[in-house]
Amino acid sequence: MNSPIEKYLHQLHAEIAELREGQPYAVAPKGRRVDPEDFGICLATVDGYVYEVGTTSKEFSMQSLSKPFSYGLALEEHGLETVDAKVDVEPSGDSFTEISLAPKTGRPANAMINAGALAVASLIKGAGGKTAINRIADFYSGFTDRQLASHRGVYTAERRNSDHNHALAYLMSSFGLLESPPTTALETYLRQCAVQITCRDLSLMAATLANSGTNPVTGHEALGVEAVERVLSVMMTSGMYDNAGDWVASVGMPAKSGVGGGTLAVLPGQAGLAVFSPPLDVHGTSVRGEATCRRMSADMEMHFVRSARAGRSAIRAIHSIAYVPSAVRRTDEAAAILRELGDRGVVVELTGDLLFAGTESVIRELSSLDEAVEFVVLDARRVDEVSTMSHTMLATLEKQLRHAHRELVFVDPEDRLATAVGAEESTIFLTRSMAIAHCEDQLLQRHSPELSTPSKVPVTEAAAISSLSVAEAEELERHMESRFYQDAEVVRRVGQRFDGVYFIVSGRITTTARDAEGNRVELGTLGPGMTFGELALGREQRQEVTQRAQGAVEVKVLSAATIDHLEKHDPRLAGEMWRALTREAFTRVDQYMREVTSLIRDYY
Amino acid sequence: MNSPIEKYLHQLHAEIAELREGQPYAVAPKGRRVDPEDFGICLATVDGYVYEVGTTSKEFSMQSLSKPFSYGLALEEHGLETVDAKVDVEPSGDSFTEISLAPKTGRPANAMINAGALAVASLIKGAGGKTAINRIADFYSGFTDRQLASHRGVYTAERRNSDHNHALAYLMSSFGLLESPPTTALETYLRQCAVQITCRDLSLMAATLANSGTNPVTGHEALGVEAVERVLSVMMTSGMYDNAGDWVASVGMPAKSGVGGGTLAVLPGQAGLAVFSPPLDVHGTSVRGEATCRRMSADMEMHFVRSARAGRSAIRAIHSIAYVPSAVRRTDEAAAILRELGDRGVVVELTGDLLFAGTESVIRELSSLDEAVEFVVLDARRVDEVSTMSHTMLATLEKQLRHAHRELVFVDPEDRLATAVGAEESTIFLTRSMAIAHCEDQLLQRHSPELSTPSKVPVTEAAAISSLSVAEAEELERHMESRFYQDAEVVRRVGQRFDGVYFIVSGRITTTARDAEGNRVELGTLGPGMTFGELALGREQRQEVTQRAQGAVEVKVLSAATIDHLEKHDPRLAGEMWRALTREAFTRVDQYMREVTSLIRDYY
Repeated sequence: MNSPIEKYLHQLHAEIAELREGQPYAVAPKGRRVDPEDFGICLATVDGYVYEVGTTSKEFSMQSLSKPFSYGLALEEHGLETVDAKVDVEPSGDSFTEISLAPKTGRPANAMINAGALAVASLIKGAGGKTAINRIADFYSGFTDRQLASHRGVYTAERRNSDHNHALAYLMSSFGLLESPPTTALETYLRQCAVQITCRDLSLMAATLANSGTNPVTGHEALGVEAVERVLSVMMTSGMYDNAGDWVASVGMPAKSGVGGGTLAVLPGQAGLAVFSPPLDVHGTSVRGEATCRRMSADMEMHFVRSARAGRSAIRAIHSIAYVPSAVRRTDEAAAILRELGDRGVVVELTGDLLFAGTESVIRELSSLDEAVEFVVLDARRVDEVSTMSHTMLATLEKQLRHAHRELVFVDPEDRLATAVGAEESTIFLTRSMAIAHCEDQLLQRHSPELSTPSKVPVTEAAAISSLSVAEAEELERHMESRFYQDAEVVRRVGQRFDGVYFIVSGRITTTARDAEGNRVELGTLGPGMTFGELALGREQRQEVTQRAQGAVEVKVLSAATIDHLEKHDPRLAGEMWRALTREAFTRVDQYMREVTSLIRDYY
Repeated sequence: MNSPIEKYLHQLHAEIAELREGQPYAVAPKGRRVDPEDFGICLATVDGYVYEVGTTSKEFSMQSLSKPFSYGLALEEHGLETVDAKVDVEPSGDSFTEISLAPKTGRPANAMINAGALAVASLIKGAGGKTAINRIADFYSGFTDRQLASHRGVYTAERRNSDHNHALAYLMSSFGLLESPPTTALETYLRQCAVQITCRDLSLMAATLANSGTNPVTGHEALGVEAVERVLSVMMTSGMYDNAGDWVASVGMPAKSGVGGGTLAVLPGQAGLAVFSPPLDVHGTSVRGEATCRRMSADMEMHFVRSARAGRSAIRAIHSIAYVPSAVRRTDEAAAILRELGDRGVVVELTGDLLFAGTESVIRELSSLDEAVEFVVLDARRVDEVSTMSHTMLATLEKQLRHAHRELVFVDPEDRLATAVGAEESTIFLTRSMAIAHCEDQLLQRHSPELSTPSKVPVTEAAAISSLSVAEAEELERHMESRFYQDAEVVRRVGQRFDGVYFIVSGRITTTARDAEGNRVELGTLGPGMTFGELALGREQRQEVTQRAQGAVEVKVLSAATIDHLEKHDPRLAGEMWRALTREAFTRVDQYMREVTSLIRDYY
């Protein structure tokens, strides 16, 4: 099926193809014909998908499109300060062929005009056995998914037509503004202008800038985020020559054009747009390139003000740990105490990005917790981007909480947050249930040490058969056999049929399942006094979960055969047991329903 | 507890208070002393929370801070085109006292310099019995939470010192650039400059701009989003005088300063920053105001490139409906068929914003579905912002799917998406379970009409007791009594004790619970052949859910008293029944565990 985005791009392409104004750039090597009909649009996303319409795989010269990338290379190699001393960041309002240096500082106004680009080119030298242009071509290649190269014929043709740039280079040199001889800087510059790319390449280059400098296809970090920030800022105000203000107001995306017919625009964080169409307006900007950017910005709401509407709270929900207890089954007394103490622990579920607004919402909430709260479980599993300021702020908060004898506990299996904010390893958990179990254990120890989970529970005191008389329970126990398991040993696995009821005497059993994508998901932990094995009584009489020993485990098993035997010879006792297990099962249904209720909070 | 953000702001305030350069603006009415020590910082979030440090409630004159707001008012009243014809949007590079009109067009370069502000002021007239300045003050007030007014004494003092602006106004009038007499435009302008605000006001005004024009405290739509986009764009390139490029590169936030000592900066979508400190640098910019913006942008990563890192896929998960079936219990045969047909239905869980990147990811996924898919459930409950382009794109997709005989079904209780993309009402559901039930019903009708849920199921065929012999089942039925309920009637409610097992003969029963916030959450729907009432056997022997009739319902009840009686007189049959119910219960545990597994996918 044709995606509506493809459909939109095809329509846009057809409409803008009707624009027939403009003249292609005239300088070209012999035999290299520029076809004014060529017209391609590519849109690359920050996960590396590329939409392509029209002429997207034909090579053309980067020309001025090389400027932001060489500027990035110079910034990366020499640092902001050194480069800033040579090139300013102000929009010049000048056309790209003007010879202009800032009146006060003498520096070129910015790196997007020829003077600035020459100063930048003079900063890039050969190194490691590579010429300057080879290093540049390699660097540019990091923004796309293939090796790029400078075209010798294009370079030669350009050099034959470079009187104006010669004049500029010598003038700059006379003012001491170049870091290499004027002809060397000029050669580097003209060769970088002759690097050949396709419209598809250009969209990936734009997407790499959109993706904070990391190539979304190859994963290569082509440019550091500080340099990206600077490059995009200068493109925003000075990328499209002449009308900086109009571009910011009406398009609102950093962009750059080249006389080779290419235009790129960047939607930071989201996508890179590239257009190839040789006919140029009087400013040397591709007519269709500019029109495409304007239309896309309006239709797709890519303007920097509109595309920034993401300042949501990063808090998905907050509730007491009593509301969603851990999967650790407690005795009735312990469970009752935990319900009472429940408000001393809160779970804060995070979601989305921890950029400024998200972080602020979390900090504000955690700084105004009720006095009674002793434990805060920060569930970081749904967190996406985390900014550095978020780390700093949360680290401060973690320390503040610790000083106030409150514990910040993390559910953070991928360590998106915990280590970076200085959490101790003992407070980082893989699952929410484990984190809450930790808080529950601590709360019990602090407030009711006598109710802390006992290390051993005799079968006769198991929750599942608590409604039976002591005599009945002891009678049942006589029919059980003891089994022992080592840490991590599988006790029951997916697909097994019912073979009896397992009573845990000591140790812990974890229950896991596979989700739709095949990932292992932990569903809970059972301790002494609890039972398992009955799940196989459910759907298709096979269990869907795996149960493993956590540490050394002792269980007593009332086997299926023994149960059959009991039903024949002591139907009353068997009936009592089933009734007890039914009760137990519905306690668990209830627990799962609470968990589902909490997880699907916004269901209704 | 002191929030780390408050702590940071206090530290920043203390550090920047050390900056002692600059001179306060000299023009003031008699007796109104400007204290150079005054220094306040306010940060307002888009949900209306305001952080305040220092002098935040003392009034000062807006001066040039009035320019972006009057520009907004003019844009709102006259439209972009009319205002653009009078005022350009280009950075001028001029200082704010320079008399400068664009060389080609004759228009003032932008609305942030005095010439542009005069042109804008000339567009704002009295109306509806209100003077121009009263209308302006009312409009400004919409951006904060109290009534603002222009200060007569300040206005008078300013007018005594307005030779330069008089010259400018007459010069502009001579070129036909004003829409009212020069002295009228000048008076309006000088009176708007004299509107008194506090630092707190200013932060709310900035936050209103950050919040797409809607006042985050009052909810008032102070300015439309198109005008906000334009105002912020011009502030980005021309708000801080002189060094537009440097501001964009190093701060990257739209901002504006006024000689009254106020500075505002906007982080679109996230926050508004305001600083009050009278000492000005040679450009007329508050020294501490500028320094605070620079520090906050760096420390809090507020630069437009960095703050835009939100281009995540809007798809949280995709899976077949077989993986998380509806809560409607089916017969074993129907369940088996649905497992087979499951890949013909997929659930796509959305999350976060449907701006460009989010929408694109959804469109791409839905456009490349497997050929077999007949039903797509779009779960929109976790969607935040939805852009207009998203509506357009999804509407196209909805039509495409319909033409291909595929149905797009929405889980969208708050109608964030469905109506806007043109979905028919019959395809919009409140819960995921209901949406999936709809798909299941349709699939069964298409592929196995004979297995569609029967309208009536005799108790003897109920799933819960399917393991009993026909004779046993009939024996049980003899002990049951019939009950009838009307639509919406509560059958069992929260807190009730176990009073028997309810077998549904015809009709449907919905189960709901309250979540931590007290919202009603639907947990599932039961149909003919299914049972309920056993949940009260669980925790504390009371049920936590409410069960209601959906339409007319007939049930047969095996009461608790009858069960007690059975246990005494027919223990074998009672035992069989409990065993059957245990099996039923664990089938449900299994179902809930699957649901939990899917909901907590990222648990492990």
